[in-house]
Order: sequence, then structure tokens, then C-alpha cells
Amino acid sequence: MSVTFPRGFRASGVAAGIKPSGAPDLSVVIAEEPVPAAAVFTQNSAAAAPVRLSRRHMEVSRGAIRGVTLNSGCANAATGELGDRAAYDMAAAVAGEVGCEVTEVLVCSTGPIGPQLPMDKILPAMQLLVARAASSPTAGKDAAAGLMTTDTFIKEAAVSGPGGFRVGGMAKGAAMIRPSMATMLAVITTDAVSSAQRLRAVLSEAVEETFNSINIDGCESTNDTVILMASGRSGIEPSPEELTKGVRKVCAQLARDIVADAEDCTRVVTILVSGAPDDGSARRMGMAIADSDLVRCSFYGGDPNWGRLVAALGACGEPLDASRIDITYQGTPVARGGTHTGVDLSAVEPLLAGDFEIDVAVGDGPGTARILTSDLTPGYVIFNGEPS
Amino acid sequence: MSVTFPRGFRASGVAAGIKPSGAPDLSVVIAEEPVPAAAVFTQNSAAAAPVRLSRRHMEVSRGAIRGVTLNSGCANAATGELGDRAAYDMAAAVAGEVGCEVTEVLVCSTGPIGPQLPMDKILPAMQLLVARAASSPTAGKDAAAGLMTTDTFIKEAAVSGPGGFRVGGMAKGAAMIRPSMATMLAVITTDAVSSAQRLRAVLSEAVEETFNSINIDGCESTNDTVILMASGRSGIEPSPEELTKGVRKVCAQLARDIVADAEDCTRVVTILVSGAPDDGSARRMGMAIADSDLVRCSFYGGDPNWGRLVAALGACGEPLDASRIDITYQGTPVARGGTHTGVDLSAVEPLLAGDFEIDVAVGDGPGTARILTSDLTPGYVIFNGEPS
Repeated sequence: MSVTFPRGFRASGVAAGIKPSGAPDLSVVIAEEPVPAAAVFTQNSAAAAPVRLSRRHMEVSRGAIRGVTLNSGCANAATGELGDRAAYDMAAAVAGEVGCEVTEVLVCSTGPIGPQLPMDKILPAMQLLVARAASSPTAGKDAAAGLMTTDTFIKEAAVSGPGGFRVGGMAKGAAMIRPSMATMLAVITTDAVSSAQRLRAVLSEAVEETFNSINIDGCESTNDTVILMASGRSGIEPSPEELTKGVRKVCAQLARDIVADAEDCTRVVTILVSGAPDDGSARRMGMAIADSDLVRCSFYGGDPNWGRLVAALGACGEPLDASRIDITYQGTPVARGGTHTGVDLSAVEPLLAGDFEIDVAVGDGPGTARILTSDLTPGYVIFNGEPS
Repeated sequence: MSVTFPRGFRASGVAAGIKPSGAPDLSVVIAEEPVPAAAVFTQNSAAAAPVRLSRRHMEVSRGAIRGVTLNSGCANAATGELGDRAAYDMAAAVAGEVGCEVTEVLVCSTGPIGPQLPMDKILPAMQLLVARAASSPTAGKDAAAGLMTTDTFIKEAAVSGPGGFRVGGMAKGAAMIRPSMATMLAVITTDAVSSAQRLRAVLSEAVEETFNSINIDGCESTNDTVILMASGRSGIEPSPEELTKGVRKVCAQLARDIVADAEDCTRVVTILVSGAPDDGSARRMGMAIADSDLVRCSFYGGDPNWGRLVAALGACGEPLDASRIDITYQGTPVARGGTHTGVDLSAVEPLLAGDFEIDVAVGDGPGTARILTSDLTPGYVIFNGEPS
């Protein structure tokens, strides 16, 4: 179940013909009226046209949003004024069909950077897309399917909170995933009662430990967007903590799915950092480990090459006493006080045949972080080396 | 010709048995007396024992250095107090054989991080190593061979400057190459007359555009060291500019060789950044492009995927107007003003079958940089995934 699990939302997805394959590539999520919304966007200074448009619409509408339209097959990034016009026309087409202000519609795009959107295919498909929008569970799934690029499975999540308010969400991932502030495309809906202001705080907190704590290839996208909309249709106004908990659960499920579906990855690796001066420092250390090609090559080989983690930590610019680093692979301590424990590393290798966990303690500070990453594989390189 | 091309230096290399393969793994470069020297080291805060020892020896000796000993097959990094003792013992052994202060000897190590040095093999080999040190051209080559880890060829360079002073050098590279301040292991010798103070300025300027402008895999090593020694035996005191030019030529040749010999790389790609606010900004932009896995995957595929360059530039944190980016692949403009020029990209692909050049203009500032990198290949991943 996805974005239509919470009451008050309709969704649909169609194949507009953006993708040559004929797979679904255009989606919409619509509330019954303008509802409070919050959004976080990529920090990339080459942000795509739809990101720049959606930022403006969030400002102008003061976070009262009627709908979101999303396409895959083309990022509409590095597309100049023509791209800005295309993003606006997508929003205007939805607004026309739904009957709302254009500034009440957000736009997300994902796919190759550079090509222009085929508006001759998108605009004619908008009428059918909006007409088909329904509140059934399958409608949410259809919408999620329309986001997929190289994803191999649909990413959706749904939870219920105290009193029965609901949170649902959909996302897409696969590559160019190293969120800075936001991440990838994700739409989260809830039928909880909430102000736009509260939603901003809830989303900001929820993404930090979920979408902002995954790292597949160190590449920050031009299009990362996470949108949260609250219909209020459950009639329940949860506490900020309860709402954050529900949203975080959905985000965590989607974030985990994104890493598990990383292009050609064979393992999900969880990096737990502890003992850092603060959580931010811990997260930067964990991200630096996940950024390292040599570290992610060792994950692919199932090699407990802890020395590469030490080198990555030392290079990341965070305060570090290398003589205090303890590293544990899947429960087996391999380094203590910055040096080898003496354990036979070949005995650790069998533990790394599937998903595994690494604990990295860097001192006695209170900072911790939990980073999800995947291995770097020959398949990833081959796949991403092919001209698109 | 290598470090023994300049007059006043002896060198040698032997197989001490550090590497199971029996390949050369221990080298020495010796001046006839303590000579002015300069050195730059990795910025990694998990710096290896030999780096910390050499830093101290440069301070204590005030840059008057008699010799350098280098080993491959073990980085002596993340080795705790035992590692510190081993680095000291290596320096002391050379000092004993040569007849100088231990603080007049520098130590460099390269190889896997974590294992302890086999001192039972190294110490007995020191007598023969120093005894064999000669000033012949082959002696310089023997020393260069002793540095090799996964290198496939010996990296050496030699030039003559105005009046006949000489500069020679040797280096090793192959992986974990993303210099921060220094890079990898390299020893540069000259028979020019120079103070240690002048050598520091010369080395600092020479490494910036050479070793500090290459990037193979984004990974900063724990052991990077570049040492420059001046015997003064030519009797010639070149101007700072002349000496810098000679040293830079040697560094440039060695840096290029390091990239060309990157593990399993199939192409050397030169990234020319121009129009940045200043040279430092240009270099960080070029490095960010080279850091990107997705960019280096596209190099492997010979794919002019300029959009990935735009995304990498946008993510690097430098001031950027994405609508002013012009990108040219091997002479063919593919993007102007941040969007596609309309050129048929499949017609560009054949130009990228071998080494190629990319021009990236980001505005009208005076800053430029020239970064050398290599492609990311499935072979690199497989090679670095194997437990060592």
C-alpha cells in the first residue's frame, strides 16, 4: 500500500510514452482540496527545472498543495528555459484538469540529465492521468510504478499511528543516491491533522535518519525531492512525536528499499558509527566510509578490509584519534585501539556473504549514526558505462 | 633514469621478503652527506607510522637529510606502538649502516593497511641494501622497482635545467590516489644548490599542479609522501623559477605515469576547468568531477554523458551558475549555457575510445585547473574486492 492508504488522496500512473520501453512513466497524487504540505529538495546548485519550480510553488502557496505530478524517463535537468517552461506546463496541465491554481501543484522528474521532456506526449496524457486517479490501493501502486527508472521493484510503504491516523509513501531510487538535504523522489501522504509548519519539522526530522542516511554511490542528484502532504481526513491530530514516528517509519522502509535495489548491488551494509563528538560528525564519518570506492569494493568481495575504513575516516576531515578506533564486522571485533585484534580475517569472510553490519567506535563521545549503503560491483560499472 | 641521475646520490633496491612474491620491496636513496630537503605528507588524520616519524625527523633535523628508506608490501599503517617502533628501527638501521643520526633518515611505506612489518626480514636486509647503493642509472631503477605495489611499470623521470643542473625522481601509485596535500610515495633528487627553505617553496608549488591534481579513486591514502633532496653537487644555483620548472617537470611525468598505471584503467582523461572564481575553486570542481563514480563509469563506457558532470559540479559546494556551463568533449561542444548543444552524442562516442580531454568552462572568472583521472572499470572493482 502506498500514497492512497491515508484517506483523502487519489493517485494514478500511466505510460505516456516518455520511456521508449512503453513502461509507466507519468504519475499524479491529488488531494481533495489544497492541504498542508512540506518538502525538502536537493542541495545541488545545478538543481533541475522541476525542483526550482516546486520550491517556488511551495513558497507562493505557503505550503498549501493540491497535487504532485511526477515523471520518469527524463530528469528535465540542464534543460535551460525550455525545461523551465516544460515543468510549468506540466503543473498547469494538472491544475487545469483538477481545477486549482498552478502554484498548488508540485512537479518531480527523474531520469537522464540533459534531454528535453517530450511535452507532445506528456500534455495529451494528463487528462487521462487525472481522470484515472482513484483512492484504491492499486491506484497508489500504479503511481509508484510510474516513478521507476532502473528500479527493479516498486517502493511503497504504509503504517497506522495511534488512534488510527495513516501514513503512506512511495519512492524511487537505484543510482545517483547520496542525499544532501533531501533525497531522490518520494511522496509521503498522511490523513493526520497537521499544520504545514508542523509538517516541515516532522519531515526534516524524519529524513535525517532515513533518506539522508543512505549512500549508494556518493553522487548527489539534481532532482532529489521528498514531499509530505497531510489531508487531515482521519480527524486525528497526533502529537508531533507520534506523527514523526509514523512518517519516519514510512521513510525508513522506503530508504531501505532504495538501498536494497541499488543498481547491481549484492549486499546491503549497515554502518553503525558511535563515540563521535556529536550525531552530525558521526553521520559525516559514516558517509565518508560509504563514499569510499575501495571500501565498497571490499564489501563486494566480502573482505573485512578494516584498514580501508580507517583510511576513509582519516581522510574525512572530522576530528579523529586513529588510535581509538574499534571496528567490528558482523559481531567479530577485527580492530581495537586502531590496530588489528589479531583475529583471523579469513574466518570473518564467511560472515560477509550476505547483508552485514559494521560497528565503528571512534571514541567516547555521544554521537552516533546509522548509515545504509551497498557494495560497488562490476555490474554497476558496466551498467553505468553504457551510453544511454 | 631516476633518483641517481643528479650527482651526489646513491640508491638501491632489494627483495627483503616482505612480499610473498619475492619481488623487490625495500629501497634506499642516500646522499653523500646531510643535504637540504623538503617533504609534503598526507593530510589523513590516520597517518601511518612512517609518515609521523618522517614529519618529526624533518623537524628535528631542520630539513637536513642523509637518506630515505622505502618499503612496499606493507603500509605500516594502523599498527599502533609496534608500528611506531618498526618505523624507528628502519631509520636506525639505515643510520647505523650509513653512519649518520637516526633523525637524518626518512621512512616511507606502502602496501596493505593493518599488518605489521616483518622486521625479522627487513633488518637483516639493510646491510646489503646500503652496501649495494650505487650512483649508476640502474641503481636508481632498482630503487624505483622496490616501491612497486600493484604498479605494472617502474615510474621514473629525469630532466636537466639551465646550466646543467639535474632533477630526477621515482614514484609509485596505482590505487588509493586522491592526494590532499601530498601524494603517494615519490622521491625527487636534484644536484642544484638550494636551501631547505627554498626547496619547501619549490616542492609546494610543483606538487600543486602535478601530484595534487590527479585523482584515481577519490581515496586519500594514509601514507602519501613526496620528498625532495638537493645535493648541490652540480655547483649550480638556479633561480627559484628554474628549479621549480625542473622539479615540476619530473613531478608531472611521474604523476601522469601514476594515472596511466591506475589499477585496470583503460583511459586517462584530462579535465580542464576554466572560468572559475580562482584556481583553487577550479581545482575543487575538477576533483569533484573526477570523484564521481558515475562520471568515471561513463569514461569507461566512452559515453559523453555531460549531464553527470553537471550534477557533480552542482554537488561540489563551489559557487556555480549552472546556466553558464559549457562542456566540450575532445574538441566537440556538447553543452552550452548549461544545456545540450544539440550535437548528436553518438557521433562523439568514437572520439572517446582512448585517452581524451574534456573542457569545462563554468563562467568568466580567471580560475583554471588541469586534473588527470582515469576511468572506473569492472576490473578495478573485481581486483579491489578480492581479500588480500
